[in-house]
Amino acid sequence: MNICVFTLVFIINISIILTALPPLPSYDKQVNALLAQMTDEEKVGQMTQISIQLILKDSTKPWYEAEIDPIKLTTAIQDYKVGSIFNVIPTGALALDQWHDIIGKVQDEAHKTRLSIPVLYGIDSIHGANYIQNAVLFPHATGLAATFNTTLVREIGKISAHQTRAAGIPWAFHPQVDIGRQKLWPRLWETFGEDVKLVKDMGRAYTEGLQGDNLTSNEHVGACLKCYVGYGLPLSGQDRTPAWISDRHMLEYFLPPFEESVRAGAVSVMVSSGEVNGIPGHANYHLLTEVLKGTYQFEGFTVSDWEDIKRLNYRDHVAETQKEAVRQAIIAGIDMSMVPLDYSFYNLTLECIKDGLITQTRLDDAVRRILRVKFALGLFDGRTAWPNSSAINDFNKPEYYATQLQAARQVITLLKNDGNILPFDINKITETNKLLITGPTANTLTSLNGGWSYTWQGNEQGIFPQNLTNKTILESFRTRLGSTKIDYYNVSSFDQLYNVDNLLNASRTASYILVCLGEQSYTETPGNINDLTLDNAQLELVEIIKNYTQVPIIVALAEGRPRLIRRIVDLSSAILMMFLPGTEGGQALVDVLMGTYNPSGRLPITYPKYNHRLSTYDYKWCEVLLDNTIDVEFEFGHGLSYTTFVYSHLNVSSTIKWNDQINITLNVRNNGSRQGDHTVLLFISDIYRSITPPNKELKGYTKVSLDSYEQQPIQFILNRSDLSFIGLNLIRQTEPGLFVATVGNLQANFTLLADDIHSD
Amino acid sequence: MNICVFTLVFIINISIILTALPPLPSYDKQVNALLAQMTDEEKVGQMTQISIQLILKDSTKPWYEAEIDPIKLTTAIQDYKVGSIFNVIPTGALALDQWHDIIGKVQDEAHKTRLSIPVLYGIDSIHGANYIQNAVLFPHATGLAATFNTTLVREIGKISAHQTRAAGIPWAFHPQVDIGRQKLWPRLWETFGEDVKLVKDMGRAYTEGLQGDNLTSNEHVGACLKCYVGYGLPLSGQDRTPAWISDRHMLEYFLPPFEESVRAGAVSVMVSSGEVNGIPGHANYHLLTEVLKGTYQFEGFTVSDWEDIKRLNYRDHVAETQKEAVRQAIIAGIDMSMVPLDYSFYNLTLECIKDGLITQTRLDDAVRRILRVKFALGLFDGRTAWPNSSAINDFNKPEYYATQLQAARQVITLLKNDGNILPFDINKITETNKLLITGPTANTLTSLNGGWSYTWQGNEQGIFPQNLTNKTILESFRTRLGSTKIDYYNVSSFDQLYNVDNLLNASRTASYILVCLGEQSYTETPGNINDLTLDNAQLELVEIIKNYTQVPIIVALAEGRPRLIRRIVDLSSAILMMFLPGTEGGQALVDVLMGTYNPSGRLPITYPKYNHRLSTYDYKWCEVLLDNTIDVEFEFGHGLSYTTFVYSHLNVSSTIKWNDQINITLNVRNNGSRQGDHTVLLFISDIYRSITPPNKELKGYTKVSLDSYEQQPIQFILNRSDLSFIGLNLIRQTEPGLFVATVGNLQANFTLLADDIHSD
Repeated sequence: MNICVFTLVFIINISIILTALPPLPSYDKQVNALLAQMTDEEKVGQMTQISIQLILKDSTKPWYEAEIDPIKLTTAIQDYKVGSIFNVIPTGALALDQWHDIIGKVQDEAHKTRLSIPVLYGIDSIHGANYIQNAVLFPHATGLAATFNTTLVREIGKISAHQTRAAGIPWAFHPQVDIGRQKLWPRLWETFGEDVKLVKDMGRAYTEGLQGDNLTSNEHVGACLKCYVGYGLPLSGQDRTPAWISDRHMLEYFLPPFEESVRAGAVSVMVSSGEVNGIPGHANYHLLTEVLKGTYQFEGFTVSDWEDIKRLNYRDHVAETQKEAVRQAIIAGIDMSMVPLDYSFYNLTLECIKDGLITQTRLDDAVRRILRVKFALGLFDGRTAWPNSSAINDFNKPEYYATQLQAARQVITLLKNDGNILPFDINKITETNKLLITGPTANTLTSLNGGWSYTWQGNEQGIFPQNLTNKTILESFRTRLGSTKIDYYNVSSFDQLYNVDNLLNASRTASYILVCLGEQSYTETPGNINDLTLDNAQLELVEIIKNYTQVPIIVALAEGRPRLIRRIVDLSSAILMMFLPGTEGGQALVDVLMGTYNPSGRLPITYPKYNHRLSTYDYKWCEVLLDNTIDVEFEFGHGLSYTTFVYSHLNVSSTIKWNDQINITLNVRNNGSRQGDHTVLLFISDIYRSITPPNKELKGYTKVSLDSYEQQPIQFILNRSDLSFIGLNLIRQTEPGLFVATVGNLQANFTLLADDIHSD
Repeated sequence: MNICVFTLVFIINISIILTALPPLPSYDKQVNALLAQMTDEEKVGQMTQISIQLILKDSTKPWYEAEIDPIKLTTAIQDYKVGSIFNVIPTGALALDQWHDIIGKVQDEAHKTRLSIPVLYGIDSIHGANYIQNAVLFPHATGLAATFNTTLVREIGKISAHQTRAAGIPWAFHPQVDIGRQKLWPRLWETFGEDVKLVKDMGRAYTEGLQGDNLTSNEHVGACLKCYVGYGLPLSGQDRTPAWISDRHMLEYFLPPFEESVRAGAVSVMVSSGEVNGIPGHANYHLLTEVLKGTYQFEGFTVSDWEDIKRLNYRDHVAETQKEAVRQAIIAGIDMSMVPLDYSFYNLTLECIKDGLITQTRLDDAVRRILRVKFALGLFDGRTAWPNSSAINDFNKPEYYATQLQAARQVITLLKNDGNILPFDINKITETNKLLITGPTANTLTSLNGGWSYTWQGNEQGIFPQNLTNKTILESFRTRLGSTKIDYYNVSSFDQLYNVDNLLNASRTASYILVCLGEQSYTETPGNINDLTLDNAQLELVEIIKNYTQVPIIVALAEGRPRLIRRIVDLSSAILMMFLPGTEGGQALVDVLMGTYNPSGRLPITYPKYNHRLSTYDYKWCEVLLDNTIDVEFEFGHGLSYTTFVYSHLNVSSTIKWNDQINITLNVRNNGSRQGDHTVLLFISDIYRSITPPNKELKGYTKVSLDSYEQQPIQFILNRSDLSFIGLNLIRQTEPGLFVATVGNLQANFTLLADDIHSD
């Protein structure tokens, strides 16, 4: 059927299949009435977003001394008519009452302006409300993707929204729906992994969790999809460096998650700090205006990332002046500028308007979008823009911690378990044969929580709140087993090995040796690395122990990227990937190692073995021509359990009519004596395609919980749009022909018949 | 002036500036007359290319027993009307008289066909006539690029053509004009490096050298540009895996070298075995037909690479059947199929014609192109298609060897020379203080010659001819200094270290220690690597020696890729990059180390320091935002001399009118007491551009030879087309504004004024 390569006979544009209802209420009447009263200055003020640093008395002081300067506040709100402020307190998270004080003062000031337009306060709530004291910190996104549990992710979004809005903040800069296909990228862990469907689903679930059904309810916040678009595939692997992405790849891999969450109603989109094919994200008219606002009918507003409009001039060299940078960004489709440390954007935009470089139409469009979101968030409704004092008592709920622990447990992915060494035999761990714990991530919260945890980089252990839910791996084990059964030796930093003599001595009588490895916390550009290999000191630590003793070594990895561990895989009896599991990560690891929880995570990324074999699971056939295998450490979807799940009876009709559903069924059975959660993954291979097909693509997954020897029927219903791809003409299309469905070790073929109407 | 980003006011399409004369004589009359007589079978036969293996009595026998099977020959030429045969003898190079015998028999058979159309024999003459005994083997392309000497390269092309045609072979599969911007790629050394201008110039010079002014003269051969296009940037670094190249990048980096040599008259183009953006090279109608044959007015023919039409089916999965693969390839624009080990293409193409899947028009176009080239090569003129027996005596000329040595010398690039340790102090090397030589590339010809040297992989030392010009580094030193002043210890393979005790003992009294490192020979897919780091055994060898003695270590690198050597750079007093210098490489290295030749090579690629900092010299500003430096081992253009060249008086008019030439002058002076060759490099920086500009681009170079204290004025003349780039609308354009010219440590600014006619 590949005759259609050039004749396009069978091409059906399925983009219309997606729900095309503009989900954001338009508030046209209210917005237009307000807009009609506004001066150019007031309009440009709405487009201006500044950092809270600009209105603090002393922005260098620690969080607990953060205090609004009333004169600076007046300057911002009255003189520059600033419409949005965001969160960057240099160090630490504020208490809820501090937030109430700050947000209250900001809205009081805004209320005093001529039109009383409330300020839209935004914050980087990335894995929970991570800049608010005592908020629940959840696993980061890649770990959440390993749960394959969209219900859980939606619930996390909801809790995160509630705790963020409790501070009086109605807008969160999350979720990240860029796709994680560049393993070097220091923001990989912000993504939901390498698969398009999983990122689409997870991003949508998180967006729905944040925004809920009723954005005005004071229980929810507006989402901000990041970072539009193609930011996540820098060719070099270094953050904020050029991406090379063809139109086809953009449409196939990068845009769909944004489209999905935009159509689900996300109110805002933050723009990529990178460049794609020589065009900076902030100057890309095609992607911002034609695609996002045009094709995807996005009704919300776009916001720049930190200082990125200025960077069109001094970094990207596409604008000769700062004024020209402002002009280019606004014309391209930026609605709000995260300036953020001065008022240059305000002044320069007014100049551009005066000089006729920006039209009133474009100005009004930008402001209309911002006002629409402010209405949608209820900020014009009574006191909704002000913090609700009752939110303080209502801040934490017991079920939030239950969700937090459940999430951390489901994140943990068991990669290796030789001879079923895990779970630990509790009888073996005694006061004479202790559990020996070592490694740089064993006794720190920073590596469990990653970036955006009280600080941007999340690497200041000292400012983590000291409360019960914040336990390191070591502390969690001490709580569980008692200190007398635990030996701990701190013999290395992340990249330096100290004296290991005492550790080795202790290893002689140990029952098990738990080596906690991984990465120190980081995010964005400071997390750049030159090599994906885990630090030599950490690999050497395992080698030295293994050289000395045959006591089984268990490696736990707390890391945002799949760092190469080739040298120690064979030396370790068991390996667990924790990703960045949040503050319950230590407890969750104990639960898994002790058998309290049967691990169920599956890798949402391919875990590579070599620096230059960084394939994704959906590689093309040409990549494995010689050996027919992809040489990686652990494949996408890999994840062991303490029980065994067996698939049977995979079934699909052998021929499917063009307009029919594709009904794929199977049976899954827990074939062991222990209860377990398990995600069934459905892959589809399109055997021939006018564009070289990947070897397989994830087209369905479902997570089940099965008791010992319990079985359950599973059904996946697809239709031809699920088999679509971006064709030669850059239009999404499906081609009839042979397909293979794969679930575990089972395969079933089906043939999608050509449409009678369209075939000749 | 960047207002033109969206208004396109200043965009000038300069593609018309290039010479657009079809350089290949059309031979329309002769071709059409012949075509009119041909059957479909004869036409398809012309499109069919088979390997010589298919007509040998026993293709598994060594080269010296290679013998044509007359029955197989009749089958090929009479039954299948095969129009082209090529070179792959599995092992070894044939003697000239063997070639004469084979080619003679082939043409005799062709002459007996109904229309007596001669066979076009093609061969991989990659660095000289490397499949012909006693031919001169030159440095490979990346090394040649380091000479920055297009005159030399043109001469090498001429010699290669003469020696190839001397065997009766009128067609060479060279030069490679894909660009070398992916350092992992195992064909990097076939390229002329990472810079567009250099690749354009070198490719054109080689093409002109091969083809000369008179293709029918029996002194020249037709060129075959490889591998069209975008093959050289596989995202993974592995050969024949997917490239992600946007249209802009394709036009900016990959297509220009092909356009350059096509417009210089190259008669054929070999198609990329890779895929770009999901479209296999062999199915890419846009690139083959619209761009190459349309925009670039290519009048010659395209030939597939090895079995690549078949691979559209079994590897790329874009064609459901072999027949469909043939149809897709021919429709896309493939004129000749390197089938090469059966006659399936012939049969399937005839089926397609019969079924109306390929039109007579397309068939005739393909055949017309092939016949045109056969006429252009003089194959229809008298006995030109047959080998000329007088060519045997005329095969080698003394000046060929002079050129060979000159090339090898100019390739060598001195990367480090602490305290002017080089050249060697001849008085220090004595029978008691010997020159100590070690390392895996010290005593092999394979690492000097690389791939396509007597065999495809070039790694069989045993079959290298044993004659005077074939000397290893060790042998060359023994010849120069006498064996008694040389100590040699073979203590390692490429990836394994043996017992080093004797080496270390000897090092105590050595004057210098020359450690010869690098790569075993390889090409194409077998040369894939997972990590760019040089083998641990080789790095360890230097570390062990340095740990033992303070005798200065000189490292010579014979390698096709810039393998990472970070661990040993500081341990080495001097480092020389030899690339793959050919059979005179050993001699040339001796000449450089002894000071007989003052090194002049400059890197045509950036030598990286880390696996994941693989920048090119023309990086974007965003890649160095944080530290303003590119962290590499050795920069593009780096290359030391034994003397010092000083630049002064860099001058350019501060304003340049739109249509004026840009005249950049400077003075270069040899500021030392030793003669030297030196390449002056002119870089231009476009400070603001509507597409993010690279930090600088090479826009001129000139190589001078200066006596001690001699000086010379240098002039570069550019025009605005030299300042052009691929704009937002994918059209090549120049924007007025500020530019900076940089030569060494000097800079001069100029402003290109807008065109009065075009500006408003």
